Amino acid sequence: MKNPKIPKPTIKRLAMYYRCLENKKSMGLQKTSSKELAESLHIKASQIRKDLSYFGEFGKRGVGYDIDKLQSSIKTILGLNKKWNVAVIGVGNLGSAIANYTGLEKNGFFIKAGFDKDKTKIGTQISAGVLVYDMKDISKVCTEKNIEIAILTVPAEVAQKVADQLVKTGIKGILNFAPTSLTLPENIAVENVDFTISLKALTYDIVSNNDIYEIED
Amino acid sequence: MKNPKIPKPTIKRLAMYYRCLENKKSMGLQKTSSKELAESLHIKASQIRKDLSYFGEFGKRGVGYDIDKLQSSIKTILGLNKKWNVAVIGVGNLGSAIANYTGLEKNGFFIKAGFDKDKTKIGTQISAGVLVYDMKDISKVCTEKNIEIAILTVPAEVAQKVADQLVKTGIKGILNFAPTSLTLPENIAVENVDFTISLKALTYDIVSNNDIYEIED
Repeated sequence: MKNPKIPKPTIKRLAMYYRCLENKKSMGLQKTSSKELAESLHIKASQIRKDLSYFGEFGKRGVGYDIDKLQSSIKTILGLNKKWNVAVIGVGNLGSAIANYTGLEKNGFFIKAGFDKDKTKIGTQISAGVLVYDMKDISKVCTEKNIEIAILTVPAEVAQKVADQLVKTGIKGILNFAPTSLTLPENIAVENVDFTISLKALTYDIVSNNDIYEIED
Repeated sequence: MKNPKIPKPTIKRLAMYYRCLENKKSMGLQKTSSKELAESLHIKASQIRKDLSYFGEFGKRGVGYDIDKLQSSIKTILGLNKKWNVAVIGVGNLGSAIANYTGLEKNGFFIKAGFDKDKTKIGTQISAGVLVYDMKDISKVCTEKNIEIAILTVPAEVAQKVADQLVKTGIKGILNFAPTSLTLPENIAVENVDFTISLKALTYDIVSNNDIYEIED
């Protein structure tokens, strides 16, 4: 957010490259190229080279990338070379699905607590060995457990209020699933995830694909 | 996808404007401006004007936008002026969370079927009045129910195989939650939702915020 030179889509693609390199490594590969990455990810090789060029020189022309080295560089750029303490706020179906997603720990994200206001959920486990706490203890528990990232899956109506409480606990970032824009201090990072926006981008593609077929084909 | 002139982030922001206009309407407002929208959404007014300019002239300088008219235009652009028949493939926590999201029908997305291979889930309801079918009946049920959009929440290992089956049923688009890139025919729209990529974009922001504070402040 603070570095205006690097577009947000570049950062999201870096995360995609990281995952793709992980896959290639697990297949026993040691070298790859922008062309191979491009084929795996269905984007242009020139886009990949441009994205990486923001951060330095990674491969050699005609030789390609050393998978380990490139992955390690992207890991550092994305802040994935440390462990992150994460809390899930709102333990419904979505919060439970996220807390039990097997890819989290592999990427350095460790769920340390869940929070809900539903008395029947408090004291249960949101994932193996991780307790659900009372929403009203957010401040105390997040501070104690040194929570750095909150995954917010509460209803839109209460999202800002909960976010304000989280900010006071010294949290560094919020992954916001609540369908509302949060107002946060400049130094708090926020990413909004709204799958209905992705659904609308999908229907746009469907509709505009069809229009173009009618006009041009 | 087919219209190279309109960037994907513009489309996603259109969906955000749509939601924001909906909120303003529910507050009883009739007029708004790029400045007001910008303040609600924490983006630049010039960005909003630029995004809308791809699609024509919507407001008058100094007068602003008629909320109803602008919303109706965006609705048409995004393909939301029709009802979409949707199936959820994979009825775990995530699939259930999505199927029961109250914002879907409001936006024209109607869940018509769930699919799972787990025998204990088949025949149960994924949401009120909507049945879970056997994964092996995808082809028959999707064709019968005229499913246009599939929300894919199956494990990465089987995602491509399931997507191939869906393509044969005449589906138009896939919202893919499986953490893998799908290879699909050109005329099938696809949107990938991977919240770990959003988490990584978040940690990038956190880390780069901190770096910049150390260097510049």
